[in-house]
Amino acid sequence: MSTKNWRDLAAAKKAHQQTTIPSQWIISNPPLKDQLDVSALPDSYGILSAKDVEITNSQVDVLLAKLADGTWSAVDVTTAFSKRAIIAHQLTNCLTEIFIERALERVSQLDEYFKKTGKTMGPYTGMFLCLGLPISLKDQINIEGVESMMGYVSWIGRYASKNSVLVDMLESLGAVLFVKTNVPQTLMWPETFNNVFGRTTNPYNRSLTSGGSSGGEGALVALKGSPLGVGSDIGGSVRIPSAFCGIYGLRPSYNRIPYAGCVNSMEGQDSLPSVLGPMSNSLAGIKTFVRAVVVAQPWLKDPLAVRKPWSEEEYALVEHGGGKGLCFAVMWDDGTVRPHPPVIRGLEETKKALVLAGHRVIDWKPLKHDEIVKVVDDIWGAGSAQDYQTVTAISGEPLIGTMLLTPETPIGIDETPTSRPLSKGVSAYDLWQVQKKRRELRQEYLDHWLGTEKVTGTGRAVDAIICPVAPFVAPPHGMNRTADYTTVWNGLDYSSLVIPVSKVDQALDARRPPHKFYNDADKANYELYDPITYENAPISIQLVGKTLEEEAVIAMSEIVDALKANSSVIRSQLFFFFFFVQFKSIGAKPHVRPYNSVDLSFRSYLSFGTLEASAD
Amino acid sequence: MSTKNWRDLAAAKKAHQQTTIPSQWIISNPPLKDQLDVSALPDSYGILSAKDVEITNSQVDVLLAKLADGTWSAVDVTTAFSKRAIIAHQLTNCLTEIFIERALERVSQLDEYFKKTGKTMGPYTGMFLCLGLPISLKDQINIEGVESMMGYVSWIGRYASKNSVLVDMLESLGAVLFVKTNVPQTLMWPETFNNVFGRTTNPYNRSLTSGGSSGGEGALVALKGSPLGVGSDIGGSVRIPSAFCGIYGLRPSYNRIPYAGCVNSMEGQDSLPSVLGPMSNSLAGIKTFVRAVVVAQPWLKDPLAVRKPWSEEEYALVEHGGGKGLCFAVMWDDGTVRPHPPVIRGLEETKKALVLAGHRVIDWKPLKHDEIVKVVDDIWGAGSAQDYQTVTAISGEPLIGTMLLTPETPIGIDETPTSRPLSKGVSAYDLWQVQKKRRELRQEYLDHWLGTEKVTGTGRAVDAIICPVAPFVAPPHGMNRTADYTTVWNGLDYSSLVIPVSKVDQALDARRPPHKFYNDADKANYELYDPITYENAPISIQLVGKTLEEEAVIAMSEIVDALKANSSVIRSQLFFFFFFVQFKSIGAKPHVRPYNSVDLSFRSYLSFGTLEASAD
Repeated sequence: MSTKNWRDLAAAKKAHQQTTIPSQWIISNPPLKDQLDVSALPDSYGILSAKDVEITNSQVDVLLAKLADGTWSAVDVTTAFSKRAIIAHQLTNCLTEIFIERALERVSQLDEYFKKTGKTMGPYTGMFLCLGLPISLKDQINIEGVESMMGYVSWIGRYASKNSVLVDMLESLGAVLFVKTNVPQTLMWPETFNNVFGRTTNPYNRSLTSGGSSGGEGALVALKGSPLGVGSDIGGSVRIPSAFCGIYGLRPSYNRIPYAGCVNSMEGQDSLPSVLGPMSNSLAGIKTFVRAVVVAQPWLKDPLAVRKPWSEEEYALVEHGGGKGLCFAVMWDDGTVRPHPPVIRGLEETKKALVLAGHRVIDWKPLKHDEIVKVVDDIWGAGSAQDYQTVTAISGEPLIGTMLLTPETPIGIDETPTSRPLSKGVSAYDLWQVQKKRRELRQEYLDHWLGTEKVTGTGRAVDAIICPVAPFVAPPHGMNRTADYTTVWNGLDYSSLVIPVSKVDQALDARRPPHKFYNDADKANYELYDPITYENAPISIQLVGKTLEEEAVIAMSEIVDALKANSSVIRSQLFFFFFFVQFKSIGAKPHVRPYNSVDLSFRSYLSFGTLEASAD
Repeated sequence: MSTKNWRDLAAAKKAHQQTTIPSQWIISNPPLKDQLDVSALPDSYGILSAKDVEITNSQVDVLLAKLADGTWSAVDVTTAFSKRAIIAHQLTNCLTEIFIERALERVSQLDEYFKKTGKTMGPYTGMFLCLGLPISLKDQINIEGVESMMGYVSWIGRYASKNSVLVDMLESLGAVLFVKTNVPQTLMWPETFNNVFGRTTNPYNRSLTSGGSSGGEGALVALKGSPLGVGSDIGGSVRIPSAFCGIYGLRPSYNRIPYAGCVNSMEGQDSLPSVLGPMSNSLAGIKTFVRAVVVAQPWLKDPLAVRKPWSEEEYALVEHGGGKGLCFAVMWDDGTVRPHPPVIRGLEETKKALVLAGHRVIDWKPLKHDEIVKVVDDIWGAGSAQDYQTVTAISGEPLIGTMLLTPETPIGIDETPTSRPLSKGVSAYDLWQVQKKRRELRQEYLDHWLGTEKVTGTGRAVDAIICPVAPFVAPPHGMNRTADYTTVWNGLDYSSLVIPVSKVDQALDARRPPHKFYNDADKANYELYDPITYENAPISIQLVGKTLEEEAVIAMSEIVDALKANSSVIRSQLFFFFFFVQFKSIGAKPHVRPYNSVDLSFRSYLSFGTLEASAD
């Protein structure tokens, strides 16, 4: 390691990043800082051709079909997404490593070979991700010869000596890797800021966080700079940015997707491992990724990957009545902090749509979520401080203690204020006692779930839980102080998928009258909300299945997602309902936009949710 | 806890155990202490009727067939095994809790109901373990209302308040539970002795250990006091007693069989969990158990159980060329301690039989076995001492420090000599560093295995490894000082199955000339051997597959096991080979039994290996 000041090292790295950006794609007139919503800007700079726009607006399944039938070449597709990724980066600061030239060179050779021989070259079996699908990766996923810094100044210059198992597999399956994406220092924050690359912002409202730790992926995929990204999730790090950025994101169970060969925080912490999971602007992207990777038998490459073949039977929901007459349970809150109005509306609309479609919906009673989250925190805290400090000590950079906006860099952990006090660590024996407690909680929760068999009326236990991803939509930078709504499922190892359902609407999502607060945190969270602050933020739900139920969770998410068209009707009903409630409760006329603007908002939501809507 | 002296508590518990033994089954003329081989005695006391003998000599598949067609009633079968279990206990001290009366009462009600209605009663679905198969359980497996003491005086009177998940499942599947079996204090020894129940001996030679920690099961099943037992294995605790007692035993991968609701040592140690596994005198017993439990979807009852359905495809060896022309790799030693002559002979005979049957056999090169075993030890040692001492402190009993025979009780850990120094424990962070190292070793080992694809000639990597279970057959009490040959596979989480192949023969298993020693331990182990000491001890091999390959491991073991008939021929060849080698090397005529005694030994081996041979 150089003896240079860490700030100089960070500045040099950031300056070097600039040199990896193709100059012809630099935006000459970037939006002013106070332009918050940049989601519609990528098409507006003249950098993307009409074909580029068409390509980048296509879902993974469409892309694969058109790559396979030759409508688009791999060079076409990689070029289009590369351009758009670079634009997205200039709008939200979402990238870390950029290696587009390398990607294009390889793709071009492959296209050439394919043209000449009619065959794919080398290890490209093209099984599912046929030659040429661009995939973006969270910074920690090792690609040979590319740095994996994970937001640490100390790790500048840490070039991976070999591919991670997933990268080997994706390349064998035909994927094209072209960029890596930003993360918070340590990965252990639900926002995205570090001392090297700075902060990634939310494309729908740049005053809000993109979430984290896979926040770079969230912003990039939301802006369609990548059709499919891979993030990681130890407490919500795939799901939170997916929700905040309005895309789909899956947290699979431990080791369903091979993690071997990535860098990470708290390596050797085997009890509550982080998992890799896909992030995409379509469920087709999520399913394609999981199916392709699992069918390629990751357990033959990563000793920890679970030998559980992809099950078409489970995907057909054989254990869930074939997907007819499902019973969902909606968890309105976790018994600790009640979510803000838009989050509740997302659940209400989803519930109504499901009921309209003939499914049952009951309420989910959260069981000891506070205790589950506590044991998760205690397991991480058992050794995390020593882990982080060992790394930051190399360069002398401060350990980041808050994600609040500050003029220069955020404040170090040893200074006040910090929103993350560090645990001192415990003995291995004491850690085991926490882990034992956690095992007991997992048993209680499973029993609790299976006990619902008595009340569903389907003869089965609840098929899936539907719940918030957080008690708020994307909050302002530095304000994402809890990941409890996602972390609880990591503690239980339940597979869970984030589905975007709407966007904050000034009329529909007005403040509600105060409820009876569970505690001070609940009160504080309530007071944080006003619809103006969260303007335009995506609203998402989380669909939760049991451990290793990825196939079923994807299939049930498809059912929920397909009902969103009904939501337009529901929303207009809810609009009048909320209008009435608010009028009655607060006794004041809310700030209301005319009805047609509500409708418009719904359409603009669709524009990043489905291909059809965005193409018109 | 009573304030009584721990010795008094232990004596009272042992005395109470005596009262649970039906008096009519007490042997009036037990064998003298110097009668070492008691394997043939159970039939000789007049306690077992001819029908009892026929029943108890039957394998699990035959028992199930005859229970299903009504040839034998559940009362018949439970009675026969109960009698024989009580005899086995008097010969080897293998039982802890005895609840035969309760078992018989329930079975009798069930038989009655079945006779009247033609239907099974209550939760007995009879799917695979149809009504009435007796199953014995290692002491730690909780049965409601029965004590689980795990060899601790401190835990006398610890009645389980509810069934473990496995017990619930087995009872639902029709099993009859009737006895629990002896273990070493802490479970963390490869022998079986504790301060309450004392020592379990080896039925083939009572001067030798039955192994451990599932040593009670080993002795009981070998004496056919139970057709199927369940043990647990964190470092060899199913496989070592299975090998030493000449039965079949499977160590499945983590959480294939539900562990929830058992008591254990080092609870909360999530990195290298203990697993439950079947022990039986037939492979039919092993397969029946695994298939029945997995088909019953344990993941719906134990949150840690892996959602991996039983795969008939994997059992059909689809990934292993359909089972034709397999390539096995024999690991002759682990590069640290070379096994004794009978162990090597077991491997040689197996190799010859496989080659004769058209399979390929290459040598297996062990990779860093010493390092793998070291990380396993370090993970346990991170908190084990505090775990054990927390329990022993309750009663003040000493923590056992050696399993050597002593006039009264063994020597406590704080006194010399001890064969198990205790680690002081480490911080959680330091534990994570060891666990990280272990993950790297798992990756290296998998890569090493897959790398054999280049040399097998089958187009696949090696299908399974065949190796020793220990560097010796059952040693004298107190001398089982290493479990490295089994522990390495726990460290790698490879499924492995023990297959009995022969018994120590004075002529075939003479000392061999000294080899070049790897180290002092290797030399010491060499010097320990003489064929007289190990007289009559079973010889076994271990067949090792990859993680979660239970189906394939069982199927490949069936292939190996079916070839044992060929071993008779091979053995006679080997006999002359060894005779020649020894004559040449040592220059002295070995003590040789005539050829027909060799043949006899082979037949007597068959008498506990297969039904056909034992019935004649």
